[in-house]
Amino acid sequence: MSKALEKDFLDLLKEKASYEEALGLMFWDMRTMAPKKAISNRSEVIGMISQKVHQITTSDQMKAYIEELEGNTDNEIIKKAVEKSKESYERSAKIPAEEYKEYVMLQSNAEAVWEEAKEKNDFESFQPYLEKLVAYNQKFARYWGYKNHIYDALLDNYEPGVTVAVLDEVFPKVRKSLSGLLEKIQRSSSKPDPSVLQGHFPKEKQEKFSLEILDRMGYDFQAGRLDETVHPFAIGLNTNDVRVTTKYDEKDFRTAVFGTIHEGGHALYEQNINPELAFTPLADGTSMGIHESQSLFWENFIARSEAFWENHYDLFKSYAPDSFSTLQLAPFYKAINEVKPSYIRIEADELTYPLHIMVRYELEKALIAGNIKVQDLPELWNDKMEEYVGIRPRNNAEGVLQDVHWSGGSFGYFPSYALGYMYAAQFYSRMEKDIDFDKVIRAGDFTSIKEWLTENIHQYGSIKKPLEILSDVTGEQLNPDYLVNYLKEKYRKIYQF
Amino acid sequence: MSKALEKDFLDLLKEKASYEEALGLMFWDMRTMAPKKAISNRSEVIGMISQKVHQITTSDQMKAYIEELEGNTDNEIIKKAVEKSKESYERSAKIPAEEYKEYVMLQSNAEAVWEEAKEKNDFESFQPYLEKLVAYNQKFARYWGYKNHIYDALLDNYEPGVTVAVLDEVFPKVRKSLSGLLEKIQRSSSKPDPSVLQGHFPKEKQEKFSLEILDRMGYDFQAGRLDETVHPFAIGLNTNDVRVTTKYDEKDFRTAVFGTIHEGGHALYEQNINPELAFTPLADGTSMGIHESQSLFWENFIARSEAFWENHYDLFKSYAPDSFSTLQLAPFYKAINEVKPSYIRIEADELTYPLHIMVRYELEKALIAGNIKVQDLPELWNDKMEEYVGIRPRNNAEGVLQDVHWSGGSFGYFPSYALGYMYAAQFYSRMEKDIDFDKVIRAGDFTSIKEWLTENIHQYGSIKKPLEILSDVTGEQLNPDYLVNYLKEKYRKIYQF
Repeated sequence: MSKALEKDFLDLLKEKASYEEALGLMFWDMRTMAPKKAISNRSEVIGMISQKVHQITTSDQMKAYIEELEGNTDNEIIKKAVEKSKESYERSAKIPAEEYKEYVMLQSNAEAVWEEAKEKNDFESFQPYLEKLVAYNQKFARYWGYKNHIYDALLDNYEPGVTVAVLDEVFPKVRKSLSGLLEKIQRSSSKPDPSVLQGHFPKEKQEKFSLEILDRMGYDFQAGRLDETVHPFAIGLNTNDVRVTTKYDEKDFRTAVFGTIHEGGHALYEQNINPELAFTPLADGTSMGIHESQSLFWENFIARSEAFWENHYDLFKSYAPDSFSTLQLAPFYKAINEVKPSYIRIEADELTYPLHIMVRYELEKALIAGNIKVQDLPELWNDKMEEYVGIRPRNNAEGVLQDVHWSGGSFGYFPSYALGYMYAAQFYSRMEKDIDFDKVIRAGDFTSIKEWLTENIHQYGSIKKPLEILSDVTGEQLNPDYLVNYLKEKYRKIYQF
Repeated sequence: MSKALEKDFLDLLKEKASYEEALGLMFWDMRTMAPKKAISNRSEVIGMISQKVHQITTSDQMKAYIEELEGNTDNEIIKKAVEKSKESYERSAKIPAEEYKEYVMLQSNAEAVWEEAKEKNDFESFQPYLEKLVAYNQKFARYWGYKNHIYDALLDNYEPGVTVAVLDEVFPKVRKSLSGLLEKIQRSSSKPDPSVLQGHFPKEKQEKFSLEILDRMGYDFQAGRLDETVHPFAIGLNTNDVRVTTKYDEKDFRTAVFGTIHEGGHALYEQNINPELAFTPLADGTSMGIHESQSLFWENFIARSEAFWENHYDLFKSYAPDSFSTLQLAPFYKAINEVKPSYIRIEADELTYPLHIMVRYELEKALIAGNIKVQDLPELWNDKMEEYVGIRPRNNAEGVLQDVHWSGGSFGYFPSYALGYMYAAQFYSRMEKDIDFDKVIRAGDFTSIKEWLTENIHQYGSIKKPLEILSDVTGEQLNPDYLVNYLKEKYRKIYQF
């Protein structure tokens, strides 16, 4: 009887996963292939099928399976799938259906309003939407419950196990170290010259180079493809269909090269999840933070390293000889690692990036706790930027309005970017004990790295929680020292201090 | 209360249509974009969602709506949607769920077996599958019921209103006329020289020409796109997203040019259905035959006409000057209209094409009636080909195994190709009374033609039945004389008899 029950439970999960795969394909198609006029009908279809997914997640049937199977199965996958389904059930079922529906509508309207507000540098038009979004998130956080801080309930959506208490200990430490580092860098007389990177790089050549790098990373093109979009992303429809997109800027190759490698890191994660988890909620990366650790690992620890370019610089130049044939490796390497405070998070360098995240974290936490008001955000944002990054945005488009996340009601998401970066540094340090990292990178054969990541991280999908993976792999809890040391080491050489 | 009921009914139809749109996108993606390894998981998703569609079609809920709304609504769209839903309900509900499931599995296995059998010219491996498929179709036909001939029950799936009695009257007449015409053509001393069409035509140039012709036809690229596939098709995901595919043969431009225009004809139908029918079962072409009338109208009546090439020949040559710059229009026009009996239906000329259909019709009818056996098909096929088309296939790959339809259990489908051709000739004759056809074509502005088709045919979607459209537009029933006269007229000039 229990076997039959397990089968029925898996069937329900499969139905849900099938809808999610269809939704994933529609999402991808809308951003890559769909003709313009298709969007409005397609949005309705997406709305209908999303509602179906929500219904299954919160169904009495799902509840019954969870209750009957919890603590009552020998099958490890089913056990974990029950846990995960229970979490989703509880999160969703605690929100009254009517409120959820209103919230979904608010989200979809708010994103359009935000887009226009950003374009017109007009915070006031977005303000009432943001106020409602914050209010809903406060309400949801109370429905979900929390022990210490209301913001913990939101963090738990993206990085289960990480709390305000953890972040309030870690972030200030990191900030202090990075600020000190930034000062040294700014005082250095050995500055990179980023102008050497200017030069025309034809789109088709950037595409070829991107494809070649993805291939070398071990990305499986029989289980994926590369396309072009305005906002690059990676999406796993299933482990055998993980698609990557990138963006080409003919005047600045960095957008495509580092963007592709970043998304490729996400994609490798999804491609290498244990296929036995297919059609269960475990067949995805376990958290935003762990996902980001993979993309940043490839983008920064590998692709911005000296060893990487020692191997790949000739290949790179062969695709754009007109612009780079006379440029030497050393100034090239220094230029792609220039540190310079800037307004826009997604354009930030490796060092100031975490500071951007901390600005958002402090504001989100205070907003959700009701300690600051939405109307004061623009000023508070600029003050924090000045305090943390050292520059003051000149307008809201390059300030508080720059990111899409809040318009979608995603509060608690930003910290995972910084957490992912710290995880990546911890994995990197651990990996160096198993693999002669620089040597492998210099040889241009990433097989052992890919295998290490698959073995230690990728294969598990969502079987393990993020902090569980971290401690299983590194034997430690979250420890920001690894990131700080990595950055110190790296920039000491580049800026010679 | 009735209004609320109508709303609930439309919601259920919308749910079904949403799944169908998702299925359509997955189908398109599998044939154009999906990486190789994606297929196996995707097939499971397609199976799951198709089952959902089948469940809705045959649900008690659907039955209740049909019963309550039938003859009980003022809304014309709802009335027609109830009719259409009732037909689907009855067709599907009459087949026991278990048998339907077995049949779906048989279909999907049979197609793979057929593909290999065709490749290896091995009918025997396919025979047991075909026997089962025939047996299922006989069984289904009995479930569905019929008045006169068992094959009528299958015909009704594709061309409601058309029966064996109709076809047995029309087809022999057409065959007799076409055979007479074919004799005259074969005796003619004024033969086209198809060798003049040989010449390299780069793929990118064929693509550009195809895009330009689609644009001129009035195909809306903001509501569609053109891609390349092994087997070209058009697919309407919704009226604002109707995609076309084609195939490029650098040694024979005819594949892409006439193929694109053919699929473009299908696509114009789907793009111009009244948008108010969206998310109902009426938002599709009304039958296979009417659909084919649209594609053949554009492919043959327009794109193989002298007037069309008088306008477009210079444009055509500008895309492949190396191969065609010295070729005159007259021999070109004659060559693209060469009549020559051949083995493969999809490569047949305008005149022998209907004869290929009649071979299949006679065999299908006899098979389903139990008058012939599957094991005798190869010989019977070759005999009929010799009798109707005048040539005897040398093997089963170019004989009985050539088409995919039977492997999918599609019996009763083939006649719609010939019916579509006859409809097209009837529409053509009627259109000539409203529009100075040759003049419009020669001017290269197809607006009035597209508007005529939209006004008379496209806008209705499935609101009208095929024979209803035919009689509303032409004031006549099915009449094969128009096709015969069109072909006589056309080939008399080309072959000068």
